[in-house]
Amino acid sequence: MRAGPSLEEIRRHNLGTLLRHVHIGGSMSRAVLAERMGLNRSTILGLVSELGSAGLVREELPRETGRAGRPSLVVRPESDRVYVLAFDVGVDRLAAARIGLGGIFLDRREISMPPGPRNADKVAEALAGSALDMLSTAQHGTHCVGVAAAVRGMVRRPDGLVRAVPYLGWKDEEFGKDLTRRMGLGLPVSVGNEASLGALAEHLRGAGTGCQDLVYLHGDIGIGGGVITGGQLLHGDAGYGGEIGHMVVNPRSGRPCGCGGRGCLEAEAGERALLEAAQRDPSATGREAVRAVVEAADRGDITARAALHDVGDWLGIGVANLINVLNPRTVIFGGTLREVFLGSAAQIRSRINRIALTPSRENLRLRMGELGDDAVLVGAAELAFSEILVGPLETLARAGA
Amino acid sequence: MRAGPSLEEIRRHNLGTLLRHVHIGGSMSRAVLAERMGLNRSTILGLVSELGSAGLVREELPRETGRAGRPSLVVRPESDRVYVLAFDVGVDRLAAARIGLGGIFLDRREISMPPGPRNADKVAEALAGSALDMLSTAQHGTHCVGVAAAVRGMVRRPDGLVRAVPYLGWKDEEFGKDLTRRMGLGLPVSVGNEASLGALAEHLRGAGTGCQDLVYLHGDIGIGGGVITGGQLLHGDAGYGGEIGHMVVNPRSGRPCGCGGRGCLEAEAGERALLEAAQRDPSATGREAVRAVVEAADRGDITARAALHDVGDWLGIGVANLINVLNPRTVIFGGTLREVFLGSAAQIRSRINRIALTPSRENLRLRMGELGDDAVLVGAAELAFSEILVGPLETLARAGA
Repeated sequence: MRAGPSLEEIRRHNLGTLLRHVHIGGSMSRAVLAERMGLNRSTILGLVSELGSAGLVREELPRETGRAGRPSLVVRPESDRVYVLAFDVGVDRLAAARIGLGGIFLDRREISMPPGPRNADKVAEALAGSALDMLSTAQHGTHCVGVAAAVRGMVRRPDGLVRAVPYLGWKDEEFGKDLTRRMGLGLPVSVGNEASLGALAEHLRGAGTGCQDLVYLHGDIGIGGGVITGGQLLHGDAGYGGEIGHMVVNPRSGRPCGCGGRGCLEAEAGERALLEAAQRDPSATGREAVRAVVEAADRGDITARAALHDVGDWLGIGVANLINVLNPRTVIFGGTLREVFLGSAAQIRSRINRIALTPSRENLRLRMGELGDDAVLVGAAELAFSEILVGPLETLARAGA
Repeated sequence: MRAGPSLEEIRRHNLGTLLRHVHIGGSMSRAVLAERMGLNRSTILGLVSELGSAGLVREELPRETGRAGRPSLVVRPESDRVYVLAFDVGVDRLAAARIGLGGIFLDRREISMPPGPRNADKVAEALAGSALDMLSTAQHGTHCVGVAAAVRGMVRRPDGLVRAVPYLGWKDEEFGKDLTRRMGLGLPVSVGNEASLGALAEHLRGAGTGCQDLVYLHGDIGIGGGVITGGQLLHGDAGYGGEIGHMVVNPRSGRPCGCGGRGCLEAEAGERALLEAAQRDPSATGREAVRAVVEAADRGDITARAALHDVGDWLGIGVANLINVLNPRTVIFGGTLREVFLGSAAQIRSRINRIALTPSRENLRLRMGELGDDAVLVGAAELAFSEILVGPLETLARAGA
C-alpha cells in the first residue's frame, strides 16, 4: 500500500481523467466536465488549456444544439491528430485499423486467409505491412500513441507472451516483440486476449456501457470470455482469466474438446457442436454457417431447431454458473454467439431461471454485442490508448510530438 | 471518473494507509513504513505523531530484537484501546468476539445451538447480549469503532439486507438493522457472506497472504465461496458473487440440491454427499462426522475411501472450472473442506490436471485455510475495521473518542 499521490501526480491524473472523459463520452462542455470530475471551472479551464496546447483536445462550437441562443463551446478529442493502431488476428481474416482518440475509425485494412495453422512471423509480417501502409497515408503532424493486437489465445501478463493459440498452432510466441520490431515506431506493441478485449470494448462503447459487472462471451472457432468486475477487467494471476469456453459443463458424457478435455462449454455449445447437431458440415464454421442454422430453424427446420435447443441448453448452464460465481449485471453474447442467442434465447433463459440463484439473476440483462465484428478491434484500440489516458503529456512526448 | 484527491484527502489517505500497515503487518519501524509507503521519514514522523495523539498507535521498543546495540522504536497498533465487535452466525453455534486493532482477539463468546430454522430476531438478541456483555468488561477509555456480522447466505450490497439463509429459514431479513438497534452504539452493523469474509481473512492474515488472486471455498452445511481478484473481494453487481456451491457440475445425473436445482457442487461434494457416499448418517453433519470419514479412509475403510474419491472428483471439477474462469494463484480449502482436502487432495489435483488449462494452473497452489474456524470471525472483524482504515481520525471521533 503506497502513500497518496504528489501534486504533480494529481495534475497528471486529472489531465488523464479529463482526456478519458472526452475520449469515451465524446465532446462535452467544460461545465459538464467540471461536474463529472468534481472540480471547479477554473481548474478545468487550466487542464483543457494544457491538453489543448499539446494538441490532444480542441474547443469548438458544438456541431448542432437543440437550443436557441449562443451555444457553449465543447471540448472534443483531436481524433484526426492522435491515434493508435489496433490489430485483430481472427480465424479467417487479419484486421488492422488506425483509430483516433475518441474511438473513431480513421482507416482499416483486412486480409482474408484460409483457417488453419500459420506461422506467427507471417502473421506479424502481414499486419505490420498493413499498418505501415496506413501510416504512410496519415498526415504530417499526426501521432501514433500506441499499438495493440488481439489474439484468440492465452496471453501472459504483463509481458504479453502468447502462450497458446490452438487453431493457429502457436505456442509461446513472442508475437508482441516481433510486431514491435517490425513496426519500428519505438512503441511496444501490447497483446491481449480477443474476448477480454471484446469485453472491454462492449463495456466502454457497447452493450455494457455504464455497467460495472459484466460477462462477455465471444463465439467463433471456440468460445472465449471476458469478465469485467467492479469496472475492471478480471485478469487473474497471470492474465489467463476468462477462459469460459473451458468450463466443463458435461463431465460425464461430454464431447471431446480441442483442449484435450471433455464436456467443455466450447465443445458442447461452440460452432462445431451446433453444426454437427444440425447435421451440417462441422468444418465449415463461420458466421454464414451459424446464421444458416438460425434461419433454417426460423423456417421450421426441426433438426436446426433441435440443434439450437441443445446448444442453448448448454449455453444456459454455462451462463447460469457464471451468474452464480460472478453475479454480473449484464451478460453479452458477441461474435457468432450473437446469432446463436437470436435462435436460442428462450432456452438460455429457461436454464438460467432453473439454475441461477434468484437474487443473483433478478436484475440480470442478457444482451447481444452492439459492436459486432469490430468489438475486438475496438478493445485492442482501448488497450493501445491506455497509456495516453494515464499520462497524456508524457506519452505524447514519447511519441515524438 | 473523478479528479485526483485534495491535499486533505491525501493526508487522510496517508493516515489510513499507515494504520493499515501496522494493523495488517504488525509493529514496524518508521524506516520500514517510509520504505513501504514511498514517503520520506519526516512525513512518516508527522503521520505517526498524529495517529499517536489520537491513541491509535504507540511507539515503543520492540519486544525482542535479534541484533546487538540499541534497537529502533517500532510503531504498534493500540490493540487494547481500539477494537471492533465481530459476529459469526454458524450452523450449530453463534460466535461473538471483541477484536483489537492489529487483529488481536481480546475476548470471545460462543453459544451452541441445535442446527435448524431459527428466528432472525432471536439470533440478533443472543449476539447482542454476548456483545454487550463483552463491552461491559472492556476498560474505560477504550473504543469500539465498528461492528460486523457474517451469515451463511446471500447479502445484498450496499444495504446489507440478508436475502436468504436457507438452513435458518431466513428470507429478506433486516438483520444488520436489527443488530444496530439492539446494540445501540450509534454504529451501523455491517453484514457479509461468511465465505467472502473467510476469503478476506485468509487473504489478509492466513494462507493467502501476499496473494492478489485467490479462491476460498468454505465447507460446512453447504459450500460457500469467496473470490479475491486483483487484491479486491469480488462482489459482483449486488454483492452475491462467489456462490461457488451452486455452480452446476453434474447437470445430467446430479443429486438434488437445497437450492431446488440438481448437480450443484454443494450437492455433489458437500458434507451430506460425503456422508451418504460413506454410508453414514447424512443428517449428522459437522466437523467430527467429516473427520471420522477421513480417519476411516486412512485406516483402510474402502467405503470411506470411495466416498472421498467421489467427492474429490467433483471438487476437482469445480475447482478446475474456477481456475479456467478466474486464474487464481491460490485455492484455499476452509471450514470442513480442510478435512475433505486432507483426504482427497490427490483426486482433486488429478481432476485439475485434466481440466484446467496448462498456463492457468502452472503456478497454482492448493492450500488449507490457516485460520481454522476463526476465519469467518477474523473476516467479519476486517469488515468492521474497514472504516477506520479509510478515515482514522473521523471514525474515532464518531466513536466518541
